[in-house]
Amino acid sequence: MKKQFITYGLVGAMTIGLIATTTGVSASDDGSIPSHGPAKNVIFLIPDGFSQSYASSYRFYKEDALPIWEEKEMFAAMVKTGSNNAAITDSAAAGTALATGHKTDNGVIGLGPDGESLPTILDIAKENGKRTGLVATSTITHATPAAFAAKVESRGSYTEIAKQMMENENVDLLFGGGRTEFLPESEGGIRDDDRNLVTYAEESGYTYLETRRQLMQWEGEGDKVLGLFAEEALEPSLNQRTDEPSLAEMTNSAIDFLSKDEEGFFLMVEGSQIDWAGHDNDPLYAMTDTEAFEEAVKIAVDYADTHEDTLVVMVGDHDTGGMAVHASEEAHPTMLNQVHALGKDMAEAVTHDYANLEDVLKEKTAFEWTEEEMDDLKEAESLKLAINGAISEKTGFGWSSYDHTGIDVPLFAYGAGAASFNGTMDNTDIPKKMLEALGLSGL
Amino acid sequence: MKKQFITYGLVGAMTIGLIATTTGVSASDDGSIPSHGPAKNVIFLIPDGFSQSYASSYRFYKEDALPIWEEKEMFAAMVKTGSNNAAITDSAAAGTALATGHKTDNGVIGLGPDGESLPTILDIAKENGKRTGLVATSTITHATPAAFAAKVESRGSYTEIAKQMMENENVDLLFGGGRTEFLPESEGGIRDDDRNLVTYAEESGYTYLETRRQLMQWEGEGDKVLGLFAEEALEPSLNQRTDEPSLAEMTNSAIDFLSKDEEGFFLMVEGSQIDWAGHDNDPLYAMTDTEAFEEAVKIAVDYADTHEDTLVVMVGDHDTGGMAVHASEEAHPTMLNQVHALGKDMAEAVTHDYANLEDVLKEKTAFEWTEEEMDDLKEAESLKLAINGAISEKTGFGWSSYDHTGIDVPLFAYGAGAASFNGTMDNTDIPKKMLEALGLSGL
Repeated sequence: MKKQFITYGLVGAMTIGLIATTTGVSASDDGSIPSHGPAKNVIFLIPDGFSQSYASSYRFYKEDALPIWEEKEMFAAMVKTGSNNAAITDSAAAGTALATGHKTDNGVIGLGPDGESLPTILDIAKENGKRTGLVATSTITHATPAAFAAKVESRGSYTEIAKQMMENENVDLLFGGGRTEFLPESEGGIRDDDRNLVTYAEESGYTYLETRRQLMQWEGEGDKVLGLFAEEALEPSLNQRTDEPSLAEMTNSAIDFLSKDEEGFFLMVEGSQIDWAGHDNDPLYAMTDTEAFEEAVKIAVDYADTHEDTLVVMVGDHDTGGMAVHASEEAHPTMLNQVHALGKDMAEAVTHDYANLEDVLKEKTAFEWTEEEMDDLKEAESLKLAINGAISEKTGFGWSSYDHTGIDVPLFAYGAGAASFNGTMDNTDIPKKMLEALGLSGL
Repeated sequence: MKKQFITYGLVGAMTIGLIATTTGVSASDDGSIPSHGPAKNVIFLIPDGFSQSYASSYRFYKEDALPIWEEKEMFAAMVKTGSNNAAITDSAAAGTALATGHKTDNGVIGLGPDGESLPTILDIAKENGKRTGLVATSTITHATPAAFAAKVESRGSYTEIAKQMMENENVDLLFGGGRTEFLPESEGGIRDDDRNLVTYAEESGYTYLETRRQLMQWEGEGDKVLGLFAEEALEPSLNQRTDEPSLAEMTNSAIDFLSKDEEGFFLMVEGSQIDWAGHDNDPLYAMTDTEAFEEAVKIAVDYADTHEDTLVVMVGDHDTGGMAVHASEEAHPTMLNQVHALGKDMAEAVTHDYANLEDVLKEKTAFEWTEEEMDDLKEAESLKLAINGAISEKTGFGWSSYDHTGIDVPLFAYGAGAASFNGTMDNTDIPKKMLEALGLSGL
């Protein structure tokens, strides 16, 4: 798996030669490559932890309406996800593969396995005059968005990632959560370097946004924008707060802002919490956050429908949970309409003596709960996981893990250059193919 | 889901019109359709119960050698598997969909949901002058092969299926197990109608084969052949008997026989027991029977490489077991080389008092087994499932079900007409697309 690293300029030159040879892109008479391919813009949507099981179960859950990726016939390829040092990737190595086209070790952000700094598709887009943006429902410093704009040995170095993101001149737009990571301890943050990166951003010419209302009123002015809409992660879609924007709203505003430039744009949008739903084995969390993600995909597809030079690519970074659909007449994903809270929130609402367990279950679900079922919940090591297990059983979901698995994940593509995604691909192929669609190279 | 049934002749006529319109197949001046499309032969390989999880885990298991479907870049599409009356299909409804292009109810073979008789791709191939064959490692009367050559309300009507298969003049070759279903009780069979279908076959001009040696010595003479290589199912690949042919050997002989005709052929080959491995949650059974199946796919691909008018399609009928890969350094599919027996065989070798449990585990696996692990096995409701669960854990496999699940399954295609398989397909599309590749219609 280990690949030799070649310095950036050389990679660029070599890859250009390769593209001219292998894809038949015609070089002009002076040997230069046309500055763009079929696409001018790329919208790269990453539903973290989303595998075919999620795609299949979400179709069951929606029942009467086809998911946008099926309506638009977007399914294109299956993608291998393993990292440089492990059969099962984490989101840091997977994000790095999707951002840089290189395998790295689990936990590492933006660096190769030997610590070498890797250019990203975002860097190359920017260097070619495009606007760039990153949107997530986690903290914006979380592994997936971080891989496009920071270089750290350990994905947990959130305050360092925040600093690098603000100092990275290639990034024009950052929307997500994680405000505390941008603020010093003295101002309610967790930074121990006493820096206030929000002030720094504003001084550096960024527009700074903090609420949904501010986002809605913003007209896309300025060259740079930082939107930190929550202290930590945004709320799960089911619990969306009125002062936090939805992923679709962030995506819509991001496209408005990024598309102001003639040269086009690169935008990465992460549905961050589908993965967290998988870790929790919580089917309602998985389906409702997939639904919120689908709304963002619809925004992207709508844009591509009216801007034919736009490529939309959607792919999970790995599977989480080993979910399967066990639907029957008695237990079907549509029955999630009888559940009104996430498992983690139900568990949190239950007192230590379980005195109110039955009340919580009856208030938050329309299911019958037998004494035996409630006894099982009381005896479980994790009430959250036990509630999610019981609800999974009642709604036709099965899980084989609380962690990531090694199943290939489906890739969906739409618009300009979509046809080049097919077959069984490696995750490192994806940013290269997206660059190719833009008529660029360098990864 | 319910579709109105139209009499066979009319469907044929209407579909021909439709194909001419939508696919641009050019009709000749007199309005007739060319008698063949890009393909003259179709080899349709069905790994029963095989989903993306099996494809991914099998890659891990093989480690250093790419599976043939990856080497040949065969991945093409994802396929929805639900039946007419259930979110989760069984192999009868799935087989019927794959054979006839129509959804039916679970349990039903070759009939629509209202009992109407459905023509199969095999029928239409035969009516257009092609030779036809069915190969399986189960009894040949099992749901999947049965769906191509019999019509019964209930998949369990094995002796009736055997009779219909022998009386179905459209079938030229049958290779599999199930001898007892062809013989009367008086001759060691299970038929209560006192018919000896083997004698009947021989009297009707069939070549009859019963052993691997006979198969190897047979030179493909005659117009019809019946090979019943086991009383019931063939042995799992791991336990292959010297007098039973492998799936690849049956496939090879079938192609030799079927390809003697200028007009081409239709062959269905089922890796029947991958599904049984899934029901057992037995990773060694799953991987070794997938390996035996891959050998058959190689035979098909080799044939297509030298006969460019051949289309090879491979697709599971549904997922079984909700398998996921949980590979790590400590637990990896390659470690199945430390297991030397299927879980069901280990369980069967253990005495009722568990006195020899440790001996069996030590003889059949190279793993350490703690007292605690062995106590857990002793306390389990099913020793077989408990052993398979423990081995799954030691080798990086997870499962969420002992039954079928509703996850879409991957389709692989190769050769003439393979390009028409892509995107998200319904299982009913598949036989229609294969017929289209042959320049035919009628489903």
